[in-house]
Amino acid sequence: MKQFVEDSVEVRVRFSESDAMGVIWHGNYLKFFEDGREKLGEHFGMSYLDISKAGYVVPIVNVEVKYLAPVTFGQKIKVICHLVDAKAAKIIHEYEIWNLATNQISCKGRTEQVFLNQDTKSLQLNYPEFYEKWKKNLPWKQK
Amino acid sequence: MKQFVEDSVEVRVRFSESDAMGVIWHGNYLKFFEDGREKLGEHFGMSYLDISKAGYVVPIVNVEVKYLAPVTFGQKIKVICHLVDAKAAKIIHEYEIWNLATNQISCKGRTEQVFLNQDTKSLQLNYPEFYEKWKKNLPWKQK
Amino acid sequence: MKQFVEDSVEVRVRFSESDAMGVIWHGNYLKFFEDGREKLGEHFGMSYLDISKAGYVVPIVNVEVKYLAPVTFGQKIKVICHLVDAKAAKIIHEYEIWNLATNQISCKGRTEQVFLNQDTKSLQLNYPEFYEKWKKNLPWKQK
Amino acid sequence: MKQFVEDSVEVRVRFSESDAMGVIWHGNYLKFFEDGREKLGEHFGMSYLDISKAGYVVPIVNVEVKYLAPVTFGQKIKVICHLVDAKAAKIIHEYEIWNLATNQISCKGRTEQVFLNQDTKSLQLNYPEFYEKWKKNLPWKQK
Repeated sequence: MKQFVEDSVEVRVRFSESDAMGVIWHGNYLKFFEDGREKLGEHFGMSYLDISKAGYVVPIVNVEVKYLAPVTFGQKIKVICHLVDAKAAKIIHEYEIWNLATNQISCKGRTEQVFLNQDTKSLQLNYPEFYEKWKKNLPWKQK
Repeated sequence: MKQFVEDSVEVRVRFSESDAMGVIWHGNYLKFFEDGREKLGEHFGMSYLDISKAGYVVPIVNVEVKYLAPVTFGQKIKVICHLVDAKAAKIIHEYEIWNLATNQISCKGRTEQVFLNQDTKSLQLNYPEFYEKWKKNLPWKQK
Repeated sequence: MKQFVEDSVEVRVRFSESDAMGVIWHGNYLKFFEDGREKLGEHFGMSYLDISKAGYVVPIVNVEVKYLAPVTFGQKIKVICHLVDAKAAKIIHEYEIWNLATNQISCKGRTEQVFLNQDTKSLQLNYPEFYEKWKKNLPWKQK
Repeated sequence: MKQFVEDSVEVRVRFSESDAMGVIWHGNYLKFFEDGREKLGEHFGMSYLDISKAGYVVPIVNVEVKYLAPVTFGQKIKVICHLVDAKAAKIIHEYEIWNLATNQISCKGRTEQVFLNQDTKSLQLNYPEFYEKWKKNLPWKQK
């Protein structure tokens, strides 16, 4: 059983994001994950800029993506993003990308981020206080 | 015990590949994997164009990346790419990206590709003959 | 005196579109131009897909950009796009990108596209009939 | 009559840099210009990092590109880059991109950069001393 907070965002894929096979190049999905992550962060008041103001950076340390069906130029997608409750001092998101033109799931993904002190670049083994406090007030659901 | 074929390529990271944290944006590593994969493919005579001429496309269906240390603009990297022997009709590569400025490993990754018939887009459950034949003559090593 | 048709679209710039100077990398503005161009094309019923169905491709042959003020990650922009009436068989767009966080103009640009027959790749010296007809019914304004 | 300093670099275009028309997406040429500019800068001892250490940033303020012939995935290109002598306190480069597979010129371009003080972001109306000094010792040719 996992606790999560959900948000989503619709994205129009760009012509420049397609490749010579006529479909969205697989690496561009990491940009769509970013779109979902930022939308959720802004919605719940914890954007990259908020984290930066608090003195931290949160680099991605792990990415997993499963590609299930292609998206072609001109199609719109929906990025569903879950912030998943984690035991360790990590920010874990899970993603589903839906092709709104076909109503099919196109991709599933997962990213892990860690907290580094912005100045010293030292890894934080516990959640920074501002983040711990923020987490407590989120509208967690269970899956 | 895995069988593999190895190749590597040095890449100069671009200013445009850095992000506002001053390091190479994590999604760009998938381009470096591509650099390694294409180098190996060309070296051993099985480039994307060879696959295309044989009537197949080989989309990425799975990606895993572990980020171990950042790379900053102006640093050169080395992409070590292993084609790994697979039982199923898949093309599996494993990657290590080394930061040549620090002599540190920056990232480990893995991609899986499947064979689709170029016209019908149908998934091939066995290796196409041209690929099976090619695989037999590779200078496999063991790890 | 120029005739033009106007449309605009708001775009959220991505973290991955920023560079190590902390601002949006200059090359990414060509993607924002594309966002404006596609929005206008879709709005008035002449998208890339419509052009493709009619048997043509319309590659960019000329780009000009003046950068006036930077955009940083987290800021929203507005792309104002003008389709400008042209004598020759060209598609000409002019762009203004406004930084909605500062209410400043960030960039001005211009692109030229030509019509190629999709199969023969031959340059069309006159507008294709379908496009000529479409142009006639646009709500042209004067500037 | 213009004075210039020349350098060049060969670049392998990436699959991810192609678009759904099967050719390199026009915006990616700005990356190839960057490759040429950085190669020249490093060769003659004035890289972005050297400029940064001296306390300046040099944002692009103007770009012009003429596209003459497409490049497709798998082809190699050569970027010829000229640093052109300028009267005002600007860095001006001119570019030619040659398709080495066809021996045709693919694109011509030009970029302008200005000097900003890194801390105050104020525009420099004269060349900074370190740059003026560097310019004097370049092996200028005439065209």
